Amino acid sequence: MSVNDRTEDALNNKVKNVMTSRSKWHVPASIVSKRTVNPIRETVFNMRAKPNPDKELISLALGDPTIFGNFKIHESCIDAVIKQLQSYKANGYLPAFGCEEARKALAKKFSTEDAPLTIRDIVLGSGASDALNLAIGALCNEDQNILLPRPGFSIYQTISQSKGIECRYYNLLPDRNWEIDLDQLVTLIDDKTACILINNPSNPCGSNFSRQHLESIIQVCETYKLVIIADEIYEDMVFGSTKFYPIASLTKSVPILKVSGLAKRFLVPGWRVGWVFIYDQNGILDEIRDALLSLSNIILGANSLIQHSIPNIIFNTPDEFYQDTINQFERSASVSASVLSEIRGLHVIVPQGAMYMMIGINIEEFKGIKDDVEFAAKLLEEESVMCLPGQCFHYPNYIRITLIPPTEKLKEACDRIREFCIRHHI
Amino acid sequence: MSVNDRTEDALNNKVKNVMTSRSKWHVPASIVSKRTVNPIRETVFNMRAKPNPDKELISLALGDPTIFGNFKIHESCIDAVIKQLQSYKANGYLPAFGCEEARKALAKKFSTEDAPLTIRDIVLGSGASDALNLAIGALCNEDQNILLPRPGFSIYQTISQSKGIECRYYNLLPDRNWEIDLDQLVTLIDDKTACILINNPSNPCGSNFSRQHLESIIQVCETYKLVIIADEIYEDMVFGSTKFYPIASLTKSVPILKVSGLAKRFLVPGWRVGWVFIYDQNGILDEIRDALLSLSNIILGANSLIQHSIPNIIFNTPDEFYQDTINQFERSASVSASVLSEIRGLHVIVPQGAMYMMIGINIEEFKGIKDDVEFAAKLLEEESVMCLPGQCFHYPNYIRITLIPPTEKLKEACDRIREFCIRHHI
Ligand SMILES: Cc1ncc(COP(=O)(O)O)c(C=O)c1O
Ligand SMILES: Cc1ncc(COP(=O)(O)O)c(C=O)c1O
Repeated sequence: MSVNDRTEDALNNKVKNVMTSRSKWHVPASIVSKRTVNPIRETVFNMRAKPNPDKELISLALGDPTIFGNFKIHESCIDAVIKQLQSYKANGYLPAFGCEEARKALAKKFSTEDAPLTIRDIVLGSGASDALNLAIGALCNEDQNILLPRPGFSIYQTISQSKGIECRYYNLLPDRNWEIDLDQLVTLIDDKTACILINNPSNPCGSNFSRQHLESIIQVCETYKLVIIADEIYEDMVFGSTKFYPIASLTKSVPILKVSGLAKRFLVPGWRVGWVFIYDQNGILDEIRDALLSLSNIILGANSLIQHSIPNIIFNTPDEFYQDTINQFERSASVSASVLSEIRGLHVIVPQGAMYMMIGINIEEFKGIKDDVEFAAKLLEEESVMCLPGQCFHYPNYIRITLIPPTEKLKEACDRIREFCIRHHI
Repeated sequence: MSVNDRTEDALNNKVKNVMTSRSKWHVPASIVSKRTVNPIRETVFNMRAKPNPDKELISLALGDPTIFGNFKIHESCIDAVIKQLQSYKANGYLPAFGCEEARKALAKKFSTEDAPLTIRDIVLGSGASDALNLAIGALCNEDQNILLPRPGFSIYQTISQSKGIECRYYNLLPDRNWEIDLDQLVTLIDDKTACILINNPSNPCGSNFSRQHLESIIQVCETYKLVIIADEIYEDMVFGSTKFYPIASLTKSVPILKVSGLAKRFLVPGWRVGWVFIYDQNGILDEIRDALLSLSNIILGANSLIQHSIPNIIFNTPDEFYQDTINQFERSASVSASVLSEIRGLHVIVPQGAMYMMIGINIEEFKGIKDDVEFAAKLLEEESVMCLPGQCFHYPNYIRITLIPPTEKLKEACDRIREFCIRHHI
């Protein structure tokens, strides 16, 4: 037998083997895709409820401030992008981790004495979602766990579970303005804990941590050497005399990856630009810095027109614009809280910021309604008001409403919720 | 001991254990990030060469048609995006898998009798890179392998390796216009082979497969039940009488995920919009369809302004615009090939399409030059001409040049390459 013959023979055998095991043409989805679950989509899809055709639908479900037309990006931002379009110079590839002028502008805008930033500390991504994906992907391995807030925004789970990272939930306490239950938190930590994710101000809670509470959190992270991913996409979006503290401004020792973006502050969630800021004065995250750059090579970053517009967007949008946005949310929060807090069977936790409110349901007080999912489904069917069941945030028997609709519309939705509750309350 | 005491005791022990194993604060990069490698960045970075300060740099390295200003998006596309900006109605979240009007427009534009498409068959992503990430992520598991072209575009490796998928390389044959060596290809297939990726027209080869060759490939895929990912981002970008065939138009039985996007056809790589088309007349990819949707939940898709502009972009850009682009590349290909093919020690494979040319180097004919990386480094240092060593594409002792510069500039670069070769040829 010649070498060639032998190769051919081996080959024929191999083809036979391969053919047997590949004889049925069914292509299964990858394991990763199967565990990539969006709890909001799942829950809402399983509801299968339809709005009442006799009543106009009011959606309090989606965290998108642009849907009603009452919140609009400032025209200076539109002009900034048009300028880029007309230059014909902003259509090319940028570094996967973000263009220099954008990172420079962000460093200048957000650097403070306590929490300095240089362009080296900034990685851009395609939305805060991608920024979270980069941060979690850089820090966590498949056999590790990540500490997530409960209730908490669902994309943390979507991203972590997709990567096979175990999600462990620390509790937020509704009776303490959704502060973290630190005693319970520490019981979750072990040597497989890769990091903790903190979302402040919070979606879905609308809460804002006090300085003192943030310092307690930092204390725990220091003791347990926990890196923090701080999702602060609603930064500064707080009401009245409430003050927002970037957690990175309160520690020099705990390393922090802060995630934020244009979506909420500038009312452009569709533009898909977010970022990670690396706060690490002691070189603890040196490897993570490289890891973020490596991971950005997969999708090659955010839209170039918007990236090039960032200096204009962040420096030329008047401060009053953001304050107006916040004032509108605050007004809506107070109007809706005043209606909803009078309703028997509901328990309102008045928000201090962001664009959401959580409402507790004393479910045993409602006839024939099993849980928050059924509550939300029936509310949609009868009153054409759509809100998200707490289960989307791992928090049953609550519902989350957004403060986004024009105040009168939101008021009408709250009135309908009252009618609904009166009708179903025992 | 009360239950509480016991809990506390257990807790204290636990804290101690945790503290011991978490006592040094070093945060290692994740395994996934470490294996996410961009071979172009690595190779070029390791080159560490600097251009000759006395000669203007001419970069033939980057596949970005916008860098020299000679290729510009058609103004109708600019107008389309400006219209979206001025409407204030295109800034919100879209479905993660792409907005309906964009998918409808794409279905209408690209549907053919042989290869029909509906909006259900289309998933948008943030660039063709993200589309590839979705397609590979949907089809392949960590313990499987994927068949990739050699030479081939580096992002296939970046994505696959990041996911822990084994990359197996099938050879393209330079002497047969870079056709696939099908005999070698079949030796790579086993029961862990998840799919084959085909890139046509090719980056880096500038080749275009004949109908007959595509049919042979399909034959192999049918025999071995191989799903095809077809990266056709340079579709129709072929020269002279060469004809491009979308591989999906040639089979009804082999399921295909076709990847393409706006980047190359419309000269806007920075805009980051790409897509996957699902061709699957027999329901073989039913699970994969869902998998693509699930995976799109991680980064929530592409920029909304561009998505909303897609109908205008694809229907209102005059056909001559694309033909002009192609004509320019063809002219540049012929000018540079005529200079380079006369150079001793080089071996030019004249491209049939796309925007690249591969040049073989008879490395033993060059004094003191070890390989393609050293060739590219010295060329940069002496002549300020930058091109990519073949190693970026797993193909040593070739270099890849782009056809992107204005023809005279490209001609000058080729003249400098000639000087360089004359100087170093034995
Ligand atoms: C807390 C929080 N983080 C991140 C995001 C995602 O932001 P982006 O749209 O920039 O991906 C959202 C969006 O609602 C959010 O509420
Ligand atoms: C063959 C090929 N596929 C995919 C891509 C990536 O395209 P995009 O910029 O849309 O991510 C490129 C870019 O150069 C390419 O050459």
